[in-house]
Amino acid sequence: MVSTKPYLLRAIYQWCVDQGLTPYIAVLVDAETSVPAQYVKEGQITLNISPEAAHQLIMGDDLITCSARFGGVAQSLSIPVGNVSAIYARENGHGMAFEVVEAARQSAGQEETGDEPTPPEPTSPTDKSSGSRSHLTRIK
Amino acid sequence: MVSTKPYLLRAIYQWCVDQGLTPYIAVLVDAETSVPAQYVKEGQITLNISPEAAHQLIMGDDLITCSARFGGVAQSLSIPVGNVSAIYARENGHGMAFEVVEAARQSAGQEETGDEPTPPEPTSPTDKSSGSRSHLTRIK
Repeated sequence: MVSTKPYLLRAIYQWCVDQGLTPYIAVLVDAETSVPAQYVKEGQITLNISPEAAHQLIMGDDLITCSARFGGVAQSLSIPVGNVSAIYARENGHGMAFEVVEAARQSAGQEETGDEPTPPEPTSPTDKSSGSRSHLTRIK
Repeated sequence: MVSTKPYLLRAIYQWCVDQGLTPYIAVLVDAETSVPAQYVKEGQITLNISPEAAHQLIMGDDLITCSARFGGVAQSLSIPVGNVSAIYARENGHGMAFEVVEAARQSAGQEETGDEPTPPEPTSPTDKSSGSRSHLTRIK
């Protein structure tokens, strides 16, 4: 049975777009995620999945895929729904947080990079959560 | 700005229908709700809003409306989104709970009826929540 999570991710995404807000997702990076490594920090990456930033976005029941530009270069992104730890509006932090699957959590520590992200689209999830954690409700 | 709540209600509804489960909503009854009074218990009513039970269902941003049969008689229901305290699948209790708006909460006590519901569609929300509360995550 499909969990409620992909439905909730799509719901918050649509809410953001309808309200003119910018949907961001926080992703726990592991071997199953395909994201630009130079923007991964502490095993996580935050991605702008607004229609302006993410093209050919498909928010499926198991996988989120899109194409996005990083430093002027288009990259294909692939993110298992289980790796998404939050979705929220950049402008006000409203959204939802999720417990990430254990497999993603365990391998996340191995993916850390020391690079400081200077992203056009992604932002540090730690910057975000300190200001807006109170808006997020953890779903188990 | 529209809250995330109507988006989340629609998401859980669609999840239920896609999984072959029966979506129920728990509603705090007040002057703004139009539901059959004989099935209201302790200021609340639980309604089956599956496609089989609720016809012409519209889950709007502000209002949920549909037509449903009670004791063989079709009735038009109108429920402000703010009065919905939970949406969940009858079969397994999975879904979401919400803080109801203060106005609905305050007036709910005035709407109590002592009738025992013997509903074809609605069930007592207290029967449900005792067994499945752990599945519901309260959204503020």
